[in-house]
Amino acid sequence: MNRNLIEKIRKISGFEDKEMFRGAFEVVPVGKRASRPLKQFKPKNNKVMPLEKAIDAVGLRDGMTISFHHCLRNGDLVMQKVIKVIADKGIKNLTLSASSLSLVQDALLPYLENETITAIDTSGARGKIGKFIQSNRLQKPAIFRTHGGRARAIETGELHIDVAFIAAPACDIYGNINGVQGKSACGSLGYAMPDSEYADHVIAVTDGLSQIPLDYVSISQTKVDYVSEIDDIGDPAGISTGSIRISKSPTELVIAKYVADVIKYSGVFKDNMIFQFGSGGISISAADFLKKEMEKQNIRAAAGIGGATGYLVDMLEHGYIKTFFDPQDFDQLAIRSLYNNRNHHEISASDYANPFNGNPYVNLLDVAVLSATEMDVNFNVNVLTDSYGRLMGAPGGHPDAAAGADVTIVAMPLLRGRLPMILDNVQTVVTPGETVDVVVTEYGIAVNPKRDDLYNNLKKSNLPVVSIEELYIKAQKLAGKAAPLEHGNNICGIVEYRDGTIIDVIYDI
Amino acid sequence: MNRNLIEKIRKISGFEDKEMFRGAFEVVPVGKRASRPLKQFKPKNNKVMPLEKAIDAVGLRDGMTISFHHCLRNGDLVMQKVIKVIADKGIKNLTLSASSLSLVQDALLPYLENETITAIDTSGARGKIGKFIQSNRLQKPAIFRTHGGRARAIETGELHIDVAFIAAPACDIYGNINGVQGKSACGSLGYAMPDSEYADHVIAVTDGLSQIPLDYVSISQTKVDYVSEIDDIGDPAGISTGSIRISKSPTELVIAKYVADVIKYSGVFKDNMIFQFGSGGISISAADFLKKEMEKQNIRAAAGIGGATGYLVDMLEHGYIKTFFDPQDFDQLAIRSLYNNRNHHEISASDYANPFNGNPYVNLLDVAVLSATEMDVNFNVNVLTDSYGRLMGAPGGHPDAAAGADVTIVAMPLLRGRLPMILDNVQTVVTPGETVDVVVTEYGIAVNPKRDDLYNNLKKSNLPVVSIEELYIKAQKLAGKAAPLEHGNNICGIVEYRDGTIIDVIYDI
Repeated sequence: MNRNLIEKIRKISGFEDKEMFRGAFEVVPVGKRASRPLKQFKPKNNKVMPLEKAIDAVGLRDGMTISFHHCLRNGDLVMQKVIKVIADKGIKNLTLSASSLSLVQDALLPYLENETITAIDTSGARGKIGKFIQSNRLQKPAIFRTHGGRARAIETGELHIDVAFIAAPACDIYGNINGVQGKSACGSLGYAMPDSEYADHVIAVTDGLSQIPLDYVSISQTKVDYVSEIDDIGDPAGISTGSIRISKSPTELVIAKYVADVIKYSGVFKDNMIFQFGSGGISISAADFLKKEMEKQNIRAAAGIGGATGYLVDMLEHGYIKTFFDPQDFDQLAIRSLYNNRNHHEISASDYANPFNGNPYVNLLDVAVLSATEMDVNFNVNVLTDSYGRLMGAPGGHPDAAAGADVTIVAMPLLRGRLPMILDNVQTVVTPGETVDVVVTEYGIAVNPKRDDLYNNLKKSNLPVVSIEELYIKAQKLAGKAAPLEHGNNICGIVEYRDGTIIDVIYDI
Repeated sequence: MNRNLIEKIRKISGFEDKEMFRGAFEVVPVGKRASRPLKQFKPKNNKVMPLEKAIDAVGLRDGMTISFHHCLRNGDLVMQKVIKVIADKGIKNLTLSASSLSLVQDALLPYLENETITAIDTSGARGKIGKFIQSNRLQKPAIFRTHGGRARAIETGELHIDVAFIAAPACDIYGNINGVQGKSACGSLGYAMPDSEYADHVIAVTDGLSQIPLDYVSISQTKVDYVSEIDDIGDPAGISTGSIRISKSPTELVIAKYVADVIKYSGVFKDNMIFQFGSGGISISAADFLKKEMEKQNIRAAAGIGGATGYLVDMLEHGYIKTFFDPQDFDQLAIRSLYNNRNHHEISASDYANPFNGNPYVNLLDVAVLSATEMDVNFNVNVLTDSYGRLMGAPGGHPDAAAGADVTIVAMPLLRGRLPMILDNVQTVVTPGETVDVVVTEYGIAVNPKRDDLYNNLKKSNLPVVSIEELYIKAQKLAGKAAPLEHGNNICGIVEYRDGTIIDVIYDI
């Protein structure tokens, strides 16, 4: 990051002391964790009350920070319904801390325009909220965090949440919550757990109220202050995408097969390996190719980590994976598995990926298969903005898994439409190249020069191993050089690395 | 408590500001919870090292507080083995914070005598450690806490643990722990969980090291700093007492039947009731009688809470109980159930009983069936000392469950040997009478006068409902008046109520 940009960042109110990214494991945490207030709850007290009253009961007022999880994804109705109630009370200048924001949150636009919300931190943004941010109309730059980085920010106290509103597919009158039952079941509530542990106040918002204790508890009644019922917390159609299937795209299948072969020859393909596969068609297909090889060589995975899909829980069910640590579920099969399969475990965002605890699960990964919207010749990855610099994605767990895994594989097509995906510089650096080991495209596979060992292993195979420069040149040849992006000079977003340093910024458009 | 005693307590170093008990729910907590240090653990680091090295790595030194859980009960070998290693290093003046102490801890006597340990807090003490405490040879009075009270003390920061040593029946090389696998399986690690969450450093001590991630995790790797292997953490014979059976004592069976009938007529015997039964013969037999009535009236319990026994998990298995929240297991059947039955849930001591969180599970209890060593005419209960004032028991969860339950039933024989069990004054007040609703003896049932409603309900039955004074007189008639106890004037123990106030003291003998 150049000196001018650093100067510019440090002039922004609230960012004067922020450090810039200087390496994936360079920041050493000091001090103690934050903590939430002591509570007292007497027997026979009642937690259940209308949202309007619960908001009064916790004393929400101007300038506070409210938080939400994104486990209902594009089906979430809780953010808009809760913020409407808050706006109707005339409360202003809130910071919205969301574990992520989907297109459905376009509904929040009026509350940004009328200054109910004037600051945002999230993993991703898109649609109207993304445009609002890039129109530079927030009072300060939006902060984009990784899943592990958000847990870290909460636990260090950097992100202090006054009131957490937790969308609860199932909730009993005592305050126990789970995400695996009810008409709006969304699966693991991993991304809501840090909020429940550190927010000053926690309000469960549910459309699945039970009069008796739940038989599966994700977030305990000991962490929940109030329970409010609403008609619908989510639209099932947007919550899960249905069972995600193996790709039918020939290009994706070529990439997926290469990914499986990279794993096979990488040196980590052994009994009791531990892996993470994402939810896209390439990842699922790569898992399928790998499963066949596992069967052939009688290799079983000790553990799967990360977001769960129907394909992965089927591998769990059939013994290809022995146990699964799950912060997030992508489809109904995965949700059912979490509820029913005792080897399928719900973990928090902190357990999953926070770099400042005693050992996040991402550290166990032998292999992580990740995607990218763009990569540069230094293996830096963008998953937050598109080729035009517009907000459209989210860091999510990408930088976390990349940092934790022994072999981090980024799988992506070399071209999308008429655009090259390997560039001189990505629009936004989200995952630093030093944590990426291999890029797999339909035109070839490049190994990060710092991984000689991996290069030598892969060179022994028949795989098309080339240099990143060769891939770059190929992309330019096929698509032409990408036109330089036109953007403004105003910083309207800060991209934090998982350790809390600033790795890049988002400009207005 | 009289003014002289209060003066005396307040002269003890460290107890100057302690408040005296003034009612079960009178203390309102203020401020924030304690918190543990931020950590950083990089991929491929190694947590596994010999105990000697782990102790050096955490920087244990004179004057610190070390902690242990008692889930291995009378089979525990970890306290003595760890403290031997510490003593061999010449470290002195440690505070031993144990969730409880069993007879097996007689082995610690040399380390008390040589001042490796000079202060103790625990739930109970007995045997040689009890005698040592009552010989007034500790540097300050021992502190006796309830299970919920210890969690509270840890979470408020009143009890700061420098290094927690967690006996781990199963532990993987990453630091994940459970109590349900391995040769020393002890079941729920509920009483170790607060230590794992708040201690500055956590060392897992295991005889069941796994090279791959555990498929059941009670305490996450994110909370554990080091893992040390030793030959044996426990003696299976002392860990669980085998399946605890229905009583064969005619007196106990009479009491047990009365208990079941008290519940039947109490007004809370309804579908979806929630209860806690202890592990003694009376409790188990009472549960058995109640089960028959549940079957007859087609009543099912929504939840069981508290220590689990084979009898209760059988009720869970057969649908008499829908779900179970379990901080502790008493036998192998309960341990297996915790591992295998997805409606059987492990909870921490804080979740179970800490009065200063958002709703401990004890608050859900419609009925708790508890025991007593003695009771006085004001329903105050002693479960810590015997009729001669000698340390022999532990508050455990007794005051917690009594405070939480709607109907708290204390079941006990009116006489033990030649001694009356209902007295003018108990040797030690552990559970205040205001939280006890009914006492059930073989000679009759007395209802606390503050519970008119309960009295009226029970009076409609044929049960022998009498006044507590009648029971008292009966006991005196049968056994004669108890001789007043001879004890010293030195305070060598402080009995804390669950909210942190002092409810009684222990004198030297």
